[in-house]
Amino acid sequence: MVWGHKILLFTAIFKILSYLLYSMNLDCFIKPRSIAVVGASRDPKKMGHIILKHLIESKTKIYPVNPKAKEIEGLRCYSNVTDIPNQLDLVVLVVPAKQTPQAVKDCCKKGVRGIIPIAGGFSETGEKGRGLEEQIKSSIKGKKTRLLGPNTLGVYVPRSNLDTMFLVKERAPRPKEGSLALISQSGATGAALMDYMKFYGLGLAAFIGLGNRADLDESQFVSYFAKDKKTHAIVLYLETFSNGKRFLEVCREVSRQKPIVCLKAGRTERGARAASLHTGALAGKDTVVNGVFKQAGVIRAWDEEELLDYGEVLAFSKPIYGRKIAIVTCGGGVGVISADYLISTVKGVGLELAEFSKATKEELRKVVVPFASVENPVDLTGNATNEMYGKSLEITQKDKGVDGILCLLLSQIPYTDERVVKIVQRVVKHSKKPIVFTTVGGKVVQEWQIKLIRAGIPAYPSTLRAIKAIRVLVDRGDYLRNFA
Amino acid sequence: MVWGHKILLFTAIFKILSYLLYSMNLDCFIKPRSIAVVGASRDPKKMGHIILKHLIESKTKIYPVNPKAKEIEGLRCYSNVTDIPNQLDLVVLVVPAKQTPQAVKDCCKKGVRGIIPIAGGFSETGEKGRGLEEQIKSSIKGKKTRLLGPNTLGVYVPRSNLDTMFLVKERAPRPKEGSLALISQSGATGAALMDYMKFYGLGLAAFIGLGNRADLDESQFVSYFAKDKKTHAIVLYLETFSNGKRFLEVCREVSRQKPIVCLKAGRTERGARAASLHTGALAGKDTVVNGVFKQAGVIRAWDEEELLDYGEVLAFSKPIYGRKIAIVTCGGGVGVISADYLISTVKGVGLELAEFSKATKEELRKVVVPFASVENPVDLTGNATNEMYGKSLEITQKDKGVDGILCLLLSQIPYTDERVVKIVQRVVKHSKKPIVFTTVGGKVVQEWQIKLIRAGIPAYPSTLRAIKAIRVLVDRGDYLRNFA
Repeated sequence: MVWGHKILLFTAIFKILSYLLYSMNLDCFIKPRSIAVVGASRDPKKMGHIILKHLIESKTKIYPVNPKAKEIEGLRCYSNVTDIPNQLDLVVLVVPAKQTPQAVKDCCKKGVRGIIPIAGGFSETGEKGRGLEEQIKSSIKGKKTRLLGPNTLGVYVPRSNLDTMFLVKERAPRPKEGSLALISQSGATGAALMDYMKFYGLGLAAFIGLGNRADLDESQFVSYFAKDKKTHAIVLYLETFSNGKRFLEVCREVSRQKPIVCLKAGRTERGARAASLHTGALAGKDTVVNGVFKQAGVIRAWDEEELLDYGEVLAFSKPIYGRKIAIVTCGGGVGVISADYLISTVKGVGLELAEFSKATKEELRKVVVPFASVENPVDLTGNATNEMYGKSLEITQKDKGVDGILCLLLSQIPYTDERVVKIVQRVVKHSKKPIVFTTVGGKVVQEWQIKLIRAGIPAYPSTLRAIKAIRVLVDRGDYLRNFA
Repeated sequence: MVWGHKILLFTAIFKILSYLLYSMNLDCFIKPRSIAVVGASRDPKKMGHIILKHLIESKTKIYPVNPKAKEIEGLRCYSNVTDIPNQLDLVVLVVPAKQTPQAVKDCCKKGVRGIIPIAGGFSETGEKGRGLEEQIKSSIKGKKTRLLGPNTLGVYVPRSNLDTMFLVKERAPRPKEGSLALISQSGATGAALMDYMKFYGLGLAAFIGLGNRADLDESQFVSYFAKDKKTHAIVLYLETFSNGKRFLEVCREVSRQKPIVCLKAGRTERGARAASLHTGALAGKDTVVNGVFKQAGVIRAWDEEELLDYGEVLAFSKPIYGRKIAIVTCGGGVGVISADYLISTVKGVGLELAEFSKATKEELRKVVVPFASVENPVDLTGNATNEMYGKSLEITQKDKGVDGILCLLLSQIPYTDERVVKIVQRVVKHSKKPIVFTTVGGKVVQEWQIKLIRAGIPAYPSTLRAIKAIRVLVDRGDYLRNFA
C-alpha cells in the first residue's frame, strides 16, 4: 500500500469516526426516558412551573427538584438531582445563571446524560457571565454528560411531546409532527419560525435552541438529524459558526443524504455587530460563506421566509434533475409573471420553459376548453375546472421534455373549488416530476395552501416564492448528480 | 420671443392639453348616474343576470335591455338602448362578440357616454375576432362615446358600489373602499389581486379592467386617477403598452403628484409570447422599460406581491428623505436579518443603519429593560411590552439622524399583545418619520398585520418585504427631490 492510499484511508476513517462522535449520545435530548426539572415551581407564572407542566404532558418519567417543596403538580419533589434514585436522561435547569454552575456539577456527579440550562446571563452579557459559562464548560469537560445552552429555549420534539420551552403555547404555538428539523441559535427567531410553521401546517421533526453553545453545537445536531428517520430536511438559523470547519465537514457528509438549508445572518459588518450584542459571539467574514456552503452542499437562505420555504420544498419533494419547467395556470397574467421569473437571469432564477412534445399538446387539447393555450405556460383560462387541473398535470408530468412543474391555482374563477386540492394531490402522489404550487389571492387560497402543505405538497402564496423553491430543487438535483 | 422659447411654450401647452384630454369624460366609468345592461338575463347562472344584480346594488338608475323580456328583477326591460327615454352614462354590454359591433353602434346613436363590452372573442382570438374589434373601433371613431374593453371584467368602484364584474362575490371577494387605484390588463390577475386586498384589509379606490383597449387605455385612467382625491397611489398590471410614449408622458406628469407602480410582465421573450397568446397584444423590448420608468418616476414591481406591497406603502406613507433607517425589534435574530438586508448591496437594498444621538440612547435606556440594546437595531428583548414599543418608536422618530423606521413585531413573547397595534398606531399618526412594520409568525401576527393595514399603516409578514417597501419610500423621496 502506497503512502497516498494510506493517507486517504486514514482520512476516511477519521471522518467516519468524527462523524459518529458528533451525533453520539444526543438521544437524551430528543427522546429522554426520564427528566428532572431543577427549579420546578408551584407558582404558575414562573418558568419553573410552565416548563414542568409542559414536560408532564410528555409520557416521560418526570422528577421536580426544589429544596423548598415536597410535591408539585402531584409529583414528589427532590432537594437535589443527586437525591433522585433513578438514572436521569435529561435535566432541565430553570435556576438563575449564578446557581447554574453548581447545578451542572451536581448533574455530572449524578451521571446525568444531558443538561439544558435555560437561564440567560452568561457570555452574552459580558465579563461576569463569561466567567460563569467557563465554570460550566470546565465542569463537563471530559465527562460523558452533554449540555445544550445555556441561554436557550431548549428543545421541542412533537413526536415525544418533549417541550422544554418556557413560552406559553397560546402565545408561541407549537407546530405538529413532521419532517423538518429546525436548529436555531436565536430563541425568539426559533419561536417565530415555529409559530409560522404551526399556522401554515408545516410539520416539525424537532426544534433545537442552541443558545450559547457552551458544549453542544450545530454540527452535532446536524449529524444527529442526518440519522433520524423522521427528518427529511434540516434547517438552521445561525449568526455565527461554533466551529466553521467542523460544521462544513459535517455538512459535506450529511448533505449527500439529506438537504440542509442555512440562514447565516450577521453577514454585514453592522449586522454582525448587532448579532454580537445579541448572542455574544463574533461573526466571521461573510465573503467566504457562499463558497464553502456551495462546496458543502448547504443551500443558503437569506431570510426567515426563504429558510422555511426551502426547507418545505426539500422536505416534501424529490430534487429536479434538469432545468425544463412546465407551468400550468388558469390565469394568463400570473402565467406570464411566472414565465418571466423562471427564465430571466436579471430578476429571476434562470431556468427554462419546457417545450412540450406534439403528443402532450394533442392530449392537452382534448381536456381543455377550445380557446385555452396548450403551449407552455398551459393556460386553462377562467373556464378551468378541478378536473382540467388534474388531467393537465397528469399529461404534463409524463412529457419527457419536462423536468418539473409549477402549478398556479386561483380561486376567483367560477368552476374550481376546494376539491381541486384532493385532485392534484392524487397526481402529485405518483407524478414522475416534482410539482410546486402557487396560490394567488386571499382567504380561500390560503386555506388551499395550508391543505396542500398538510398533505406534504409544497405550496406558496406568491409566484416568486414558488419559483425560488423550484430553483432550490434544481440546485439540489445538480448537487446530487456529483455523487451519482 | 425667440424660436426656442416658442417651441418650449407650445410643447408645454400641448402637454397640458393632451394631459387634460386623456382624463376627460371618464366619470361615466367611475360614478355613472344611469346604467343600462344590454343582455340582462333572468337566468341566475348567466353573466347578464349576475352583472345586473351587482349593478342593482349601486344606487344608480338601472335599465335592463333584453328584447325577449318585459321585466327582470322588478325593473322594466327595454328592447334596445335606443328605446330608453333617459340619458345613459354607462352601458354594459353582456352580449356575445358577434352582436357587440351592432350594440356599440346603437349606443353611439343613443349618445351614451361610456360602453363596457364584457365578452371575449375579439383580437385575442385571431383574425375573425380582430375584424369584430375593428368594427367597434370605427363605430366610436370621432364620437364622444368612450369604450372600455372589450374582453374585460369592467370596473369595480367601492365608493359608489359600482360593480360590472361577472365573477360572483363569494369566489372573487371585493376589497373595501380605500386609496389604491388598480388598473389591470388581465382580468384574472386583477381579480386575484383584489381577493388579496380584501383579505389583508387593503382598500381600493377603483379597479379598471382594461381588456383589449379598443379605445380607452392605461394612460387615460392614470390621468383620471391623478385628479381623483380618493386615490393616493396608482398600481398597474400591464403586459404591453397601448402607446408607450403617451403612457410615459402621462406618468411623468402624474408621478410628481401621485406615486405610480407598474408590474410590466412579458419581459422575457417566452413570457412575451405567453402574453401575446393571452391578450393578443405584442410586448415591446424590455431592456428600455427600466430606464424610461425611472425617467417617468414609475416604480417598477417584478411580481404581483411587489405590486401591492409597493402600492400599499406609497398609498399609506410619506416618502423617506434620506437613507438612514432605524430598526426597533424584540427579537435579536430578526433584527440581524433585517440589518443585513437593509445594508447589503448584494442581497439587500443598500441603505444605512442610522447612528443614534447620545440623547436618543439615553432616553431609550430609560424605557427598556437593563440588558436591552439601545444601539441600532434597538432590541427590546423577549421582555418587551406594548408600552416599550410605543415609547421606543416615539424616541427614535425624533432623532435627527433617523430618516425612516422599520419596526419588527413578534407575538411569541410573553408581555406584548394585540393592544400593541393601537399603541404604535398613535405614534405613527404624529411621527415625523415613516414607520413600516413587519410581523413574523403565524395566526396572531397575521391578525396584527391586517389591523395595521386597516388603520392605514404599512405592515408586511416578512422582513424582506418590509425592507423592500422602505427602499421604495426612499426611491420616491429621491425622485420627488428633483422637483423640490
